[in-house]
Amino acid sequence: MVEKLYVTYNDVHRLCQESAPRMLESFKPQLMIAIGGGGYVPARILRSFLKQQGQPNIPIQAIGLSLYEELPIAHEANATTGAVDQIGTKVTRTQWLDFTSLGGMENLVGKRILIVDEVDDTRTTLEYAVKELEKDVAAVSEKLGKGGEKTEFSIFVLHNKDKPKKGTLPADMEQNKYLAAQTVGDVWICYPWEATDIEEHDRLSAEQKQKKTSSS
Amino acid sequence: MVEKLYVTYNDVHRLCQESAPRMLESFKPQLMIAIGGGGYVPARILRSFLKQQGQPNIPIQAIGLSLYEELPIAHEANATTGAVDQIGTKVTRTQWLDFTSLGGMENLVGKRILIVDEVDDTRTTLEYAVKELEKDVAAVSEKLGKGGEKTEFSIFVLHNKDKPKKGTLPADMEQNKYLAAQTVGDVWICYPWEATDIEEHDRLSAEQKQKKTSSS
Repeated sequence: MVEKLYVTYNDVHRLCQESAPRMLESFKPQLMIAIGGGGYVPARILRSFLKQQGQPNIPIQAIGLSLYEELPIAHEANATTGAVDQIGTKVTRTQWLDFTSLGGMENLVGKRILIVDEVDDTRTTLEYAVKELEKDVAAVSEKLGKGGEKTEFSIFVLHNKDKPKKGTLPADMEQNKYLAAQTVGDVWICYPWEATDIEEHDRLSAEQKQKKTSSS
Repeated sequence: MVEKLYVTYNDVHRLCQESAPRMLESFKPQLMIAIGGGGYVPARILRSFLKQQGQPNIPIQAIGLSLYEELPIAHEANATTGAVDQIGTKVTRTQWLDFTSLGGMENLVGKRILIVDEVDDTRTTLEYAVKELEKDVAAVSEKLGKGGEKTEFSIFVLHNKDKPKKGTLPADMEQNKYLAAQTVGDVWICYPWEATDIEEHDRLSAEQKQKKTSSS
């Protein structure tokens, strides 16, 4: 049975609060791109803690990505041949950047952009987001004759699962522009916004924290 | 001094959870439009509770609106004349709908769309959102030759402040397609995602609830 990790809203709040000063020091984001639905909650909380006195809020743009992990079709055949299944994955856009507001894409060129999601599981969604955003920015940059301006992307996730990843990120990003508030094993993360009984969810989370403290 | 109302994350969660069945019965939303940043958290929570067995998640599109309540410029002059200030308001788009994904605007035409925000204060932002969305949908509907298909908008907010509104909504919407999970006085609502000390925030909220119970 896969181990479950119960994360409360206040855990999410604190993970964002603790991470914000580190990002203000390193990435210094000027714009956030929230990957919906999971990135919505951390992005909104982060906005509070990334706000600097006398400065306006850091704008958030939301994008929507759905990940379909396609199951291998010929299960039996593979059982026979013993071949390792290459599980296909497909990312679908349900919302992309809006090119009409805020000066559109021009505002992304030359900026430090923080991509926000709740979890880095297989890394497929993040790879897709980074690649597509870099491609779009490069195209607009070219069009605007701003080829020289460097647009920097960084990533924030609440949880990174320590497991082999299917997706890859640029080496420099992985090393210097990637922050996971918490690294966990290959567990089933139960986020509070999925809870049908939030009191029970909180109780299970408290119980887990209690056990962890007493066993360490 | 303006009275403050402390709202916890679990309060927000429960307000969404309680409201979802009512919306599934009445509005039957097929798409959500979250007004960011305040609408992000309720929209994500609502998605969990609006999901019906065997059906995919209801897609969320995020839009970003900033409300600038312009202060009257000639304060002294008004003090002299005694004229009542007409405080101007201006809504700025920081993100609008994406016309490229999911078939773009075509997917909005003929749908039941739920607009989600955290609070209905002066109603200015909501008026803007409804008017602009209706205008855009009408234009696309016309273009697609779908003039006959009716697109229905409904509204969900966590809190409605019971006060004179500057913005107005279509009469039918106000009466039949508007749901506020909670109606409050003209108080200062402290949402959890703004809290710099979430434990203290929760403590103050519990204290308020305690007081309310013992005085009623």
